[in-house]
Amino acid sequence: MNKPIGVFDSGVGGLTVVRELSKKLPNERIIYFGDTARVPYGIKSKSTIIRFSLENILFLLKQNVKMIVVACNTSSSIALPIIKRHFSIPIVGVLVPGVKEAVFSTKNKRIGVIGTKATIGSGAYQKEIKKLDSQIKVFAHSCPLFVPLAEEDWLNEESTKDIVKKYLSYFKKAGIDTLILGCTHYPLLKSVIHKFMGKRVRLIDSSEQVALETKHILARAGMLSNKRRKNFKDTIYVSDESDSFKEIAKRILGSKFKNIIKKNNV
Amino acid sequence: MNKPIGVFDSGVGGLTVVRELSKKLPNERIIYFGDTARVPYGIKSKSTIIRFSLENILFLLKQNVKMIVVACNTSSSIALPIIKRHFSIPIVGVLVPGVKEAVFSTKNKRIGVIGTKATIGSGAYQKEIKKLDSQIKVFAHSCPLFVPLAEEDWLNEESTKDIVKKYLSYFKKAGIDTLILGCTHYPLLKSVIHKFMGKRVRLIDSSEQVALETKHILARAGMLSNKRRKNFKDTIYVSDESDSFKEIAKRILGSKFKNIIKKNNV
Repeated sequence: MNKPIGVFDSGVGGLTVVRELSKKLPNERIIYFGDTARVPYGIKSKSTIIRFSLENILFLLKQNVKMIVVACNTSSSIALPIIKRHFSIPIVGVLVPGVKEAVFSTKNKRIGVIGTKATIGSGAYQKEIKKLDSQIKVFAHSCPLFVPLAEEDWLNEESTKDIVKKYLSYFKKAGIDTLILGCTHYPLLKSVIHKFMGKRVRLIDSSEQVALETKHILARAGMLSNKRRKNFKDTIYVSDESDSFKEIAKRILGSKFKNIIKKNNV
Repeated sequence: MNKPIGVFDSGVGGLTVVRELSKKLPNERIIYFGDTARVPYGIKSKSTIIRFSLENILFLLKQNVKMIVVACNTSSSIALPIIKRHFSIPIVGVLVPGVKEAVFSTKNKRIGVIGTKATIGSGAYQKEIKKLDSQIKVFAHSCPLFVPLAEEDWLNEESTKDIVKKYLSYFKKAGIDTLILGCTHYPLLKSVIHKFMGKRVRLIDSSEQVALETKHILARAGMLSNKRRKNFKDTIYVSDESDSFKEIAKRILGSKFKNIIKKNNV
């Protein structure tokens, strides 16, 4: 089936998912929507996150996509469990693939989760982990300063190390061996988080897992594209074309994204 | 004239302006709109900031206000100079009153300005200061981490001191004697900024100045309310009722705001 895959995120962090999808599914065309005019979602209420997520799905459906990938952890945690059943096409979020990988990875059955206030407050990660293995102890904490730190590109600053220590000491004390990076921006801070948590703690970044899950879903449903894709034909829609969006998109995708941006007012 | 005064901000920081207006103009009724569903504005593009600001003004006009106060520094810097002339009622932003006070206050003619990326990038503060006194040297820098730090309520943390040092060393070296806090959230960090900058640097928080300016404008136009206001009758509209909004609103206004919140979907 040669229709495109739709992907959305509250901003541009979800482009990491686009990058992984392109690697794992080189024949698929992708349409991305980043809600950069209303970013971030993680500090907002449940009803607003659900409303924004629905609007994003309806926009992608109009682009005639065959499947939707929710690259935003906040939307995946709060909106997806409630709205998924209303749609007939497959919709997959970053939460379940990340949780599966973490449950598979842990040896001492102690998993940590970090994310936005809304994601952690929803308890969605905690619930999903317990569903797969009720023996696992889950430790969760929100890290609101990680997103602006990543956007400032302060990767080696003293203040970044201080903040990482302040947020993550809890997990070190808890003795976890697996930490889910439950926000698309956090992988940008991976090296400083890794340095603090140490070699024995595995960091789970869901973007690779969600790309594999997408491949499985399409394969099972016989919906994989059968055409070879020529050149780079993905389309990126954003609701706001700010300079910082362009900067971060370039950091994630390289310079090739330049000619494929379109505006979608919300 | 007994119509209300309209006030808007990208979020809840502008409630500090409401607090000052209530003190200086105890007879006036206020209608506030905080665009909490799309907050923050300071990382977004010029055209989006103008569009949001226009929508907020149109919403307040529908509430039959006699004057509009733009409590958001980003809107005041980017949208106001362009859209102000299209409206017949008085519209005042936080920029000009803050600048007047700073120019009045400086002795060594070296003024610093901090604000969001959009505010500083627009050059609006720099231009306005030069217009009043071309001899003054202006130093400007954006401080994107100050808003999330204030929202985390990390007022005495080591990391906060580090970040303050990182952003403000530039101003210390420049030898300024006046610093404009060009974002409604920054006064929440006043004590740590004051500690770092020292006693000789005066911090300008525009909320008091804009309240005075509002009073002058209404008085000159003969538009002051002539009725004594009974009880607390202001109305606060928000586009998202998140928990963090309630928490910060409570920090600014005390508990009395509770029964006056209304929802306005954007």
